[in-house]
Amino acid sequence: KSTFDPKEHQHMRYNPLRDSWVLVSAHRMKRPWKGQVEKPSEDNIPRHDPNNPLCPGSTRANGEVNPEYDSTFVFENDFPALQPDAPDPGSDHHPLFQTKAARGVCKVMCFHPWSDITLPLMQPGEIRKVIDKWVELIEELGPTYPWVQIFENKGAMMGCSNPHPHCQVWASSFLPNEPALADRTQRAFLQEHGEPMLVQYARKEAQVQERVVVENEDWLIVVPYWATWPFQTLLLPRRHVLRLTDLTGKERDSLASIMKRLLTKYDNLFEISFPYSMGWHGAPTGTHLTEDMSHWQLHAHYYPPLLRSATVRKFMVGYEMLAQEQRDLTPEQAAERLRGLGEEHYKNRVR
Amino acid sequence: KSTFDPKEHQHMRYNPLRDSWVLVSAHRMKRPWKGQVEKPSEDNIPRHDPNNPLCPGSTRANGEVNPEYDSTFVFENDFPALQPDAPDPGSDHHPLFQTKAARGVCKVMCFHPWSDITLPLMQPGEIRKVIDKWVELIEELGPTYPWVQIFENKGAMMGCSNPHPHCQVWASSFLPNEPALADRTQRAFLQEHGEPMLVQYARKEAQVQERVVVENEDWLIVVPYWATWPFQTLLLPRRHVLRLTDLTGKERDSLASIMKRLLTKYDNLFEISFPYSMGWHGAPTGTHLTEDMSHWQLHAHYYPPLLRSATVRKFMVGYEMLAQEQRDLTPEQAAERLRGLGEEHYKNRVR
Ligand SMILES: O=P(O)(O)O[C@H]1O[C@H](CO)[C@@H](O)[C@H](O)[C@H]1O
Ligand SMILES: O=P(O)(O)O[C@H]1O[C@H](CO)[C@@H](O)[C@H](O)[C@H]1O
Repeated sequence: KSTFDPKEHQHMRYNPLRDSWVLVSAHRMKRPWKGQVEKPSEDNIPRHDPNNPLCPGSTRANGEVNPEYDSTFVFENDFPALQPDAPDPGSDHHPLFQTKAARGVCKVMCFHPWSDITLPLMQPGEIRKVIDKWVELIEELGPTYPWVQIFENKGAMMGCSNPHPHCQVWASSFLPNEPALADRTQRAFLQEHGEPMLVQYARKEAQVQERVVVENEDWLIVVPYWATWPFQTLLLPRRHVLRLTDLTGKERDSLASIMKRLLTKYDNLFEISFPYSMGWHGAPTGTHLTEDMSHWQLHAHYYPPLLRSATVRKFMVGYEMLAQEQRDLTPEQAAERLRGLGEEHYKNRVR
Repeated sequence: KSTFDPKEHQHMRYNPLRDSWVLVSAHRMKRPWKGQVEKPSEDNIPRHDPNNPLCPGSTRANGEVNPEYDSTFVFENDFPALQPDAPDPGSDHHPLFQTKAARGVCKVMCFHPWSDITLPLMQPGEIRKVIDKWVELIEELGPTYPWVQIFENKGAMMGCSNPHPHCQVWASSFLPNEPALADRTQRAFLQEHGEPMLVQYARKEAQVQERVVVENEDWLIVVPYWATWPFQTLLLPRRHVLRLTDLTGKERDSLASIMKRLLTKYDNLFEISFPYSMGWHGAPTGTHLTEDMSHWQLHAHYYPPLLRSATVRKFMVGYEMLAQEQRDLTPEQAAERLRGLGEEHYKNRVR
């Protein structure tokens, strides 16, 4: 029998944040692809489109007119999945037909007045303004809601229905499944090991370097050991930080810098505006603001779907939906690919 | 305050099989869609293509030649995610870097010699042969492997890379995440309530009828109370059945019949060959074959992505990946839509 080589031999890896396993079958990359190819992303977006409801000066679905904003701009989602005043469905339910109340608010946040720009092409100072606005939103909504989910869907492939650079903020009266799971696993880890899970994890990854994509004094970005999406990354602070609101001014600047570096590499990978869903997970808020939440460590997840090229994605279907997630290259291979890419954006390169 | 109306007011529903919640925001259907539209599915598939490795008489990637099969045909996947002989990665791992051995086999099963046919257009007797082959595969692989996942990815949108009607069978040396979860929840339910979860559930749904799509003497298909995909369904036997191998001949016939009825309705919904991932969950096998597994009830999940039309799908992205799954119409609305559709396939209708 040959000795184990993760690049050649399928195996499973444990995701300690989600308490689940991923199947890694790196040899699958060799199979030919004859399935669906994606449309390359739109490259001729006008800087300003008066009919785009996200642009400065546009009229939105509810008749409101956007200001002539010149930095970030936040407004209430015109088609919110969560509203603050839904009636209560009551609580007397059969165990197989359980319903619970859900209340909240959904906001949209534009990153920049231009439609033809993205985060990696923005100036560090402009990205810093996005981060400052994220902090303000947590400060504003955190006291009322136990969970404030900041997330960005980028690219048509990720269900994003508007090319203007923006993210969303959905605050809810409940702790959703994913953060509830991360709360449970981080709490158990601290109890058992005496150190917050992701503080220890960042330190180990910084030592080994094998899965590090970019790092600076305050932050570290790795392809996590348990990544499911081909080029998935995890953004971690080096020091123990509970929430975005706890970051210093210097840490916000170095966050802007490391985000720009990661997203430039992402775009350079296949020389397109790289699609992904990303989002922040920090310690829960609401009544948890006054509880001991030291098992939490602030982090952001980036989930990009592309696998082989600008048009061939990984499908999380069939086996993945019914049995277990499966990936076709090792996290170490993905990290090496990303690490090797330049930090100057391909659009700015002189050819 | 108005009274609670699930069609108007967002709420959460509990999925007892997955021990998690789904956010239901039916009012979201009103929002306009300006995002990605899917390519309509290919309609000019040749009945026989000598270059298609799934056709009778074709040569596959490994040089083998398919027989001139005239019913079902099973072969080993030429690019398997699971192989029987991968070396063991060992077991002495740091809690944040855990690896486990994974072994198994991956097979492909063609449903029919023709590339231009699908299950709903096949004769009940032909579908019965597919079911018989599923049973044989569980009989063959079950003794060796604790989990034998039978699944079908249908349509390019679901990552299916070959239009020839087929499914896959991945048998593994481990219980994957999803069945491990369903094992835990079903075991706890039987312990607490004295009846298998899905036996009780099928009985309740048959009484209420509200979410039933089709039914016959032996089987019931519902849009489950906790459905996440827009037109997701759950196929359940009426009597307590652990595995596909326990079905009587009559039950296999009535299964062929109800599958044909469901899939015809699916195709009729948007008058296209309806994409989905589906798969069977029965009691685990291997060493579990001799254990008491009476908490299990055999069932099949259908996960179709389309939401509004043949080209507008539901994207499970952003909020769904980072926080919690969310749906845009109620399961009752979806069941009503499907129930109202005819049971003659649109391709066979005289116009
Ligand atoms: O094996 P196929 O059909 O080529 O591949 C498809 O199904 C697999 C199992 O669900 C997935 O892992 C792949 O992402 C998908 O493209
Ligand atoms: O709100 P949007 O951008 O129109 O919609 C997008 O993001 C939402 C939140 O992740 C998803 O529920 C939708 O399926 C997706 O299309």
